[in-house]
Amino acid sequence: MATADGQRVLRDLKHLRTMGAYKTGVHRPALSAEHVASINWLKAELEALGHRTTVDGIGNVLGEAPVNGPKLLGGSHLESQNYAGWLDGPLGVVYALEAARAVKADPSLAGCGVDVAAWCDEEGHFGHFVGSKSGIGKLSEADIDAAVDRTSGTPMREALRAAGFEGRPRFTVDAKRYVGFLEAHIEQGDWLEANKLKIGVVTAVVGSRNFVISFEGTQNHAGTTRMAIRKDAGVACARLIVAIEQLFPTICGPRTVWTTGRVTLHPGDPSIIPGRAEMLFQFRDTDAALLDKLEDALRNLVAEADRAGPCRVMLEQQRKGMPAVMADSFQSAIEAAAQARLPGCHTRMPSGAGHDAQILAEVMPAGMVFIPSIGGISHHWSENTADEDIVLGAQVYVDAVARLLKS
Amino acid sequence: MATADGQRVLRDLKHLRTMGAYKTGVHRPALSAEHVASINWLKAELEALGHRTTVDGIGNVLGEAPVNGPKLLGGSHLESQNYAGWLDGPLGVVYALEAARAVKADPSLAGCGVDVAAWCDEEGHFGHFVGSKSGIGKLSEADIDAAVDRTSGTPMREALRAAGFEGRPRFTVDAKRYVGFLEAHIEQGDWLEANKLKIGVVTAVVGSRNFVISFEGTQNHAGTTRMAIRKDAGVACARLIVAIEQLFPTICGPRTVWTTGRVTLHPGDPSIIPGRAEMLFQFRDTDAALLDKLEDALRNLVAEADRAGPCRVMLEQQRKGMPAVMADSFQSAIEAAAQARLPGCHTRMPSGAGHDAQILAEVMPAGMVFIPSIGGISHHWSENTADEDIVLGAQVYVDAVARLLKS
Repeated sequence: MATADGQRVLRDLKHLRTMGAYKTGVHRPALSAEHVASINWLKAELEALGHRTTVDGIGNVLGEAPVNGPKLLGGSHLESQNYAGWLDGPLGVVYALEAARAVKADPSLAGCGVDVAAWCDEEGHFGHFVGSKSGIGKLSEADIDAAVDRTSGTPMREALRAAGFEGRPRFTVDAKRYVGFLEAHIEQGDWLEANKLKIGVVTAVVGSRNFVISFEGTQNHAGTTRMAIRKDAGVACARLIVAIEQLFPTICGPRTVWTTGRVTLHPGDPSIIPGRAEMLFQFRDTDAALLDKLEDALRNLVAEADRAGPCRVMLEQQRKGMPAVMADSFQSAIEAAAQARLPGCHTRMPSGAGHDAQILAEVMPAGMVFIPSIGGISHHWSENTADEDIVLGAQVYVDAVARLLKS
Repeated sequence: MATADGQRVLRDLKHLRTMGAYKTGVHRPALSAEHVASINWLKAELEALGHRTTVDGIGNVLGEAPVNGPKLLGGSHLESQNYAGWLDGPLGVVYALEAARAVKADPSLAGCGVDVAAWCDEEGHFGHFVGSKSGIGKLSEADIDAAVDRTSGTPMREALRAAGFEGRPRFTVDAKRYVGFLEAHIEQGDWLEANKLKIGVVTAVVGSRNFVISFEGTQNHAGTTRMAIRKDAGVACARLIVAIEQLFPTICGPRTVWTTGRVTLHPGDPSIIPGRAEMLFQFRDTDAALLDKLEDALRNLVAEADRAGPCRVMLEQQRKGMPAVMADSFQSAIEAAAQARLPGCHTRMPSGAGHDAQILAEVMPAGMVFIPSIGGISHHWSENTADEDIVLGAQVYVDAVARLLKS
């Protein structure tokens, strides 16, 4: 049967960590020299395995197994958030690479194959899943024209030129070629660790609703303006945040999350009553009906606050991401694989973060495997997972792939 | 009897408005070319009146009446906030200048005089009342060495050199020379206007207590971190703002004011739970005992929030300004002068904003006269007062000066 070489998986991941090493993590932004180095490494590994390998005009990598039987597409991304962790992305690429090797080496899977993809910029340096969207044919040239690095302001066209990818054609995956797409990832939360579990079988990737809520009051002198006549936009903003904290727990599901990530008071002077305030608010769940219900509740809170005064309160929707349900066949295969290796080590759970799998799910069956994150930490250089959990996860991934290819 | 020439007062104020004109207001930061022009204009007017006039090494102007009888010191400041109003400061300087003229012209006040001061940078471009503090001998050379323009970052030494004031000696007022200091100012609030009054007799300039309150939580991914384990510093900050809004009205006096002028969430990304938050909070009142009581209440709220968790909450005091009580003799003189001109047009009231008079009050009796601000607007170019209110105020100021010189 197909066997993952755990030491090889760790060696590959630790080699990738040298590309843009930062403390115990990495700084490997999309299309940086370090990212290009990791792409070149992957291409060489895939070619050594005999895969027909392409790096395309958006920086996506696709290695195709030269076989005629059932094929699965595996992968994730190679670039990192700024000064962030070493596993977020590379884990899923290396697992897919290891599965391609293990399947090729297993006579019982003769004729089957694992294609390996590394989608460019899942982390959103230049946009929102630009690589995987390109891979399913949903990224236009105009989208690329408009894309700009959120940190440096560099246009994506310029970054693609510097990376050497300019002018190459972009590939679109042939959905009919695959039984589906399987992505492994660190959990980025603490659910598995807190419950002493090793494998998360992802049921769905959450949908996210994002809003800008703004408050219009009257800017005035903080010493001379009586409390009775103030229209303090900052206080109005604080009241709404607290009202959400009171209302949402009465409506939410068990894994709903909501966050005010930014608050801005204008002009922000200690002795001036804020005349304007703005908050960035989002919530996420896997249940589309519940997202609608939460959005209704939010709109009602905003309307009530606006009616009650003294400030105007306005809501603008920035994004309405739909939940992406993972295929039953993939959930069953991962669950069975985990149960066979370590009974009771697994649980079904949603993904609170977005992943390339949610984009691929638009065109083919998709699934996701989670392994534990130590302390639930992610998007930080201290992100980590125990070596033995990485090794176990690799074998469960390979086992699930084998089950899917044989089914 | 001493008579203010209302048309001359309006003409002088409107002439000053041409120096750094911005819409209907002015942009005349401390030590700018426009500010120096206004200083030179004042010096020329005072010399034309026969006053011995000095512009000193900090940009303070002092014009001394060459008389041997009782003398009063009048004045305010000539520079403005950035892109702000035309009356905030110049009104008090022009009233003092007009009083100097009127007293000189009144035979019944022979031997009496009004010295006129314009204190540099009351608006705090370079510090906190640097001009008036220098005028009472409480500004060191080291203070000036450390002072930097809050907008441009220019060191004050450099700005003084550019203004031509570098190397000049700095004067300290001789408190024994004066019956006291009288400053006129626009109210900067709406109390007079709302109550159809024309003159505010200032009882005290409020004391201000300023704090930085910080919240330490745990930064994490907004999609993957369950609500139950979050330590969201932004939510903790919003809760404290709302708790203050609930508690302070039960303790405060009729004119207490409190303000959260700035809130900062770190890192401020829409998809990251804020791990740290900071708010700038201040409150003001004229009653020192009440300020202590409010500070105790705030400290208790912070300690309770810190105990309750999940975030740490810490308070750091930035400033503890004491209220400055205006002299009874000055309050009575202003009140009697107002009552004689327009019975019932006046009220006793605190000043919510800081003024040079609070600094001068440390060394001599001091008083303040307020006139109405249209719509209570200040620190904005649209700041304004009706011409007839300016004219009435000038006469009440001159009348109060005459009463104080004769008493």
